[in-house]
Amino acid sequence: MSGSGYVRTIELTPPALGNNTADVQRLEQALKKELKTGYVHIPRHLIEDLPVRLREWDWRTKVVLFKDRRSFVVVALLDPNDAAPVLGAAVDIGTTRMVISLMDLETGKKIGETGLDNPQADIGPDVLTRIHHAKTPAGRGELQDLAIDAVNRHLARMCKDNDRSPDRVFLLAGAGNTAMTHLFLGLPAFGIIQEPYIPCANIPDTLDATQLGLEIHPRGQVFLFPNIGSYFGGDLLAGILAADLDQKDSPCIMVDVGTNAEIVLGSRDWLMACAGAAGPALESGVSQVGMTAKPGVIDRVSVDPSTRELIIHTIDDHPPVGICGSGMIDLAAALFTSGRIDIRGKLVSGTCGGCLTDENGIPAFDLVDAAGSGTGRPIRLSQVDLDSLTSAKAAMYTILEVIVSQTAGLSFSDLERFYVAGTFGSFIDPTSAITIGMLPDIPVDRFQVLGNTSLQGAEQVLIDPEAFDRVMAIRETITYIELNVNQDFMNLFSGAKFYPHTDTSRFPSLRSIQMSPKSDS
Amino acid sequence: MSGSGYVRTIELTPPALGNNTADVQRLEQALKKELKTGYVHIPRHLIEDLPVRLREWDWRTKVVLFKDRRSFVVVALLDPNDAAPVLGAAVDIGTTRMVISLMDLETGKKIGETGLDNPQADIGPDVLTRIHHAKTPAGRGELQDLAIDAVNRHLARMCKDNDRSPDRVFLLAGAGNTAMTHLFLGLPAFGIIQEPYIPCANIPDTLDATQLGLEIHPRGQVFLFPNIGSYFGGDLLAGILAADLDQKDSPCIMVDVGTNAEIVLGSRDWLMACAGAAGPALESGVSQVGMTAKPGVIDRVSVDPSTRELIIHTIDDHPPVGICGSGMIDLAAALFTSGRIDIRGKLVSGTCGGCLTDENGIPAFDLVDAAGSGTGRPIRLSQVDLDSLTSAKAAMYTILEVIVSQTAGLSFSDLERFYVAGTFGSFIDPTSAITIGMLPDIPVDRFQVLGNTSLQGAEQVLIDPEAFDRVMAIRETITYIELNVNQDFMNLFSGAKFYPHTDTSRFPSLRSIQMSPKSDS
Repeated sequence: MSGSGYVRTIELTPPALGNNTADVQRLEQALKKELKTGYVHIPRHLIEDLPVRLREWDWRTKVVLFKDRRSFVVVALLDPNDAAPVLGAAVDIGTTRMVISLMDLETGKKIGETGLDNPQADIGPDVLTRIHHAKTPAGRGELQDLAIDAVNRHLARMCKDNDRSPDRVFLLAGAGNTAMTHLFLGLPAFGIIQEPYIPCANIPDTLDATQLGLEIHPRGQVFLFPNIGSYFGGDLLAGILAADLDQKDSPCIMVDVGTNAEIVLGSRDWLMACAGAAGPALESGVSQVGMTAKPGVIDRVSVDPSTRELIIHTIDDHPPVGICGSGMIDLAAALFTSGRIDIRGKLVSGTCGGCLTDENGIPAFDLVDAAGSGTGRPIRLSQVDLDSLTSAKAAMYTILEVIVSQTAGLSFSDLERFYVAGTFGSFIDPTSAITIGMLPDIPVDRFQVLGNTSLQGAEQVLIDPEAFDRVMAIRETITYIELNVNQDFMNLFSGAKFYPHTDTSRFPSLRSIQMSPKSDS
Repeated sequence: MSGSGYVRTIELTPPALGNNTADVQRLEQALKKELKTGYVHIPRHLIEDLPVRLREWDWRTKVVLFKDRRSFVVVALLDPNDAAPVLGAAVDIGTTRMVISLMDLETGKKIGETGLDNPQADIGPDVLTRIHHAKTPAGRGELQDLAIDAVNRHLARMCKDNDRSPDRVFLLAGAGNTAMTHLFLGLPAFGIIQEPYIPCANIPDTLDATQLGLEIHPRGQVFLFPNIGSYFGGDLLAGILAADLDQKDSPCIMVDVGTNAEIVLGSRDWLMACAGAAGPALESGVSQVGMTAKPGVIDRVSVDPSTRELIIHTIDDHPPVGICGSGMIDLAAALFTSGRIDIRGKLVSGTCGGCLTDENGIPAFDLVDAAGSGTGRPIRLSQVDLDSLTSAKAAMYTILEVIVSQTAGLSFSDLERFYVAGTFGSFIDPTSAITIGMLPDIPVDRFQVLGNTSLQGAEQVLIDPEAFDRVMAIRETITYIELNVNQDFMNLFSGAKFYPHTDTSRFPSLRSIQMSPKSDS
């Protein structure tokens, strides 16, 4: 026998007079032994041809397997000499973007990856609109079709580009938030958005591709990550898997900053999670100039130590057109270290190069003037935008404090690793985030950017049979902390709204960073 | 919660803010608790409507379940106030006859029963012909269709007669020999009849009714009893279940006499089984007058103690037309006790009222003369017929001796119960069978006729969830004894060819039975 993961080449002992086990059970027993498991399910449709095939193939076969919640399941029995790659597809089902990767299940290598806008955005850009649309079976079907068709189309193109057939894709694993998962599966989702916020299913069992209209191998198996509740989705479970949080010796934390900040803390011994609204100000859309990453968007801001001028970097070095989340954090850090904002996050007009009062009489700051801008208008940040960012960074820090200190009873320095997940998180400069008091002041080398952990987790489930069981175990054991926005929380939040914090002893590394105020030049 | 078996009415705790388990998992957890099991599978097609229905039904539902090899499976979710009976069907898939019964799954009561000739007999009366016919997929499909259509037709009629709809039949359990099971499921069967005699499957997993074309509830579940090998079928496993052999404190034996004698011996601690050709002479067709039971067939023969005349009884008291297996055993016993045959089973012409030499010069015996016969010809038994019966009864006794004494190391008197299964067995008079030395000389009250244990086992699987696990456990633990027809066996067989046996000490109760020879009247 050879192979690993879900593709195994099995050699059976041929039957004889003293060894009269039936063909199906002969294969079943060999697979149980090979996989060290108590049960392997061989579906009816594979049984009919089994006697002839096993004899044709001289009692050898290449077996493609997968798991459902109960056991290993045989997906296909191939000629042992079939040398064409056995494929799997992983899908990150994001509300805005979807990413699909094509995997070789035997080598575990990625063959291709492609991103696309979630076509459900045609119905509504946000989860709420889509769930309302899905209230009728027709609307639900429409949303599901949009997502499934998009996967079919892009997967087919990716297969073609790699000279493969979608028929060779035997497994598909997807991860998304609870709403996206329900809409992908065509399940009723209304419970997710109305009190008491009950999803239809926490655990979507492994399904046949044809049940969903997915155009992979007709008997291909589809797994979507389970969720913990309406606000704790499969994408985050995939992230925990990708970060191996459930296998750490010492406590680690993972933060996925999106519209919500989703936080998981723990180790092999315990896991806890919480989610809180922290994101909009960070991700995009808060300030008039905020936007998601694209050419011309300011993604880095730093301070020239000698001139204290702000230095900007734009994506693809195009003329600046706006600023993205990571740029905002850099900007706030730069404004703070250069003395342009005070510890309350307020623009210090006297010392602020670029400070002004906008047409509404609100203090503002032009990061780029109209002449230097790619839009013909200045890249301007108002005090209102800044206050939003201040609230967001304070919320993030408070949530971290609540879960790490108050709930788990740890100090930030106990965290061996601080994982930052998600596309947005990938671009955050930890030093800037510490500078504004959004992330705790731990050694920068403990921060690690993970990227698209939702996709990575889905890929892992395709190639590692243990991953399936780990996901189920994580789901069973994780404690979901309901964030209680009470007086205590508000007190912590108030302190965190300062730059970096009212309690500066929490940020010892910053003492030397802040520059002395500089008079307006 | 209420109900037992596979129909349960479940009451769920309604969700709340602090109790946000998804609808599907809420039901799953309640069922796990109710059924005291680790996993309950709720298939995808039931999930879609679940949120709306659970709320409509105020968090109560009547659940129809079944088992597959891995867990309980939810078959249907009904309105908790749905009062119509939930039905199941049991099928004994005999080579010659099929019997179908309709069960109320809630009360466990039988609603109706119907028998029919297995329509596959149109292709061939015997297993061999059918398996040859099934070598092509078309032939296999034809045989399967014949059986499935017959079940559909008779089940529909039985439902109609009882004012029920086949849509209310949620479960179907069938038991047949290994070949009949394969043909019913449309599985290739050629391996069963050619060395090394390997079935396609030992364990047919629970299937959807639609996969087989069975016209019960479209999502109904179908279970066919597993087999141990080509010559030890699901019918016998059903018999073991029906006889509760696997739950006995002391060793018991079950014998199913058909074309083969199938024997199971054991208790809760161990089970062993063997099968051997013993039947044809017993069942029918050996003598020119042998036939299966129908009006006019002689089914009982006794001796008038004073006149030593043989007294016959025919089915429905019609004029005699032939003799069936149980009548043959009675007849042999009567010939022996009346001194008409000697201890070798040879007709003693001198003492034999009715003895003659037939047209071929072979000794023969007219049980009924031409005048008294319903056919106009005498009901005549030749020495050849008698020798056949002698061989058959000797084979049966030898097989019993081999398994009970030689293999299990028990004596016949250790057997607490001697179960006789099968339609043919139902008519055997134990005293006659002991008299000719076919069955061992144990107290007659230990013999118990069970009837159609194949059907009874199938019925039990429908109403008792533990029966499923028992079947699988019996299959795993039973030891199949390959009957070795060696010199040792032949020696035992030689002794058993005498009436009752060369070793008369084995039949102490017979010492007083045999009458002294009587001169020809």
